[in-house]
Amino acid sequence: MKYEKWISEDDIDWTKMEGLVPVVVQDIETKDVLMLAYANREAVIKTLDTNLATYWSRSRDELWTKGLTSGNTQYVKQIFADCDEDGPDALLYLVEPKGPACHTNNTSCFFREIAMKGDDTYGK
Amino acid sequence: MKYEKWISEDDIDWTKMEGLVPVVVQDIETKDVLMLAYANREAVIKTLDTNLATYWSRSRDELWTKGLTSGNTQYVKQIFADCDEDGPDALLYLVEPKGPACHTNNTSCFFREIAMKGDDTYGK
Repeated sequence: MKYEKWISEDDIDWTKMEGLVPVVVQDIETKDVLMLAYANREAVIKTLDTNLATYWSRSRDELWTKGLTSGNTQYVKQIFADCDEDGPDALLYLVEPKGPACHTNNTSCFFREIAMKGDDTYGK
Repeated sequence: MKYEKWISEDDIDWTKMEGLVPVVVQDIETKDVLMLAYANREAVIKTLDTNLATYWSRSRDELWTKGLTSGNTQYVKQIFADCDEDGPDALLYLVEPKGPACHTNNTSCFFREIAMKGDDTYGK
């Protein structure tokens, strides 16, 4: 992916979700989408400062550097922001994961599939 | 990616964001993350019914089938839900896009990069 221009965390629209923006987390090698988390300004600054993916835990209401307990940290190589002219309101972290993203030990948190037409259990 | 079990839109936790969940949209071929959108229950059902990626537009407050105007529809091949035990609260649409995802004509909405350590403009 190519950037159009460098921006900073100051350009992000922090107003839409009470100071939070959703963060899509993608493995920079495999390109698997690993998880969706949320970050506030402090979490983004800490991520920029340490290169360790840091989020805001909505359930614990605290800053959360992924993997500090489990060891499954995510080394952040690049951060992209979305296209909103009034200020980006979503981020994409491209990471090198040290282990599974999911607390279930799955590589990705997105391992449950919704049945669609043609699938075994669709409409049942 | 492998599914662990089939689930349905009824399993999703629709309570956390006033009836909405964030949807990560990924190109099933290139694995590029194309955009982040939001869906309500009706949008997911319409997506399942038509295979055309349908979202809830927060700015227009209406159901939004991507590309009906621009032609840049997204054919949804698979939908994954995240790992929350109390009910998934994020979705991943794997799509075949008919054109650019972004209104700027970029393939992906995530084309603006945030400067990190070592980048030209970091801290400037």
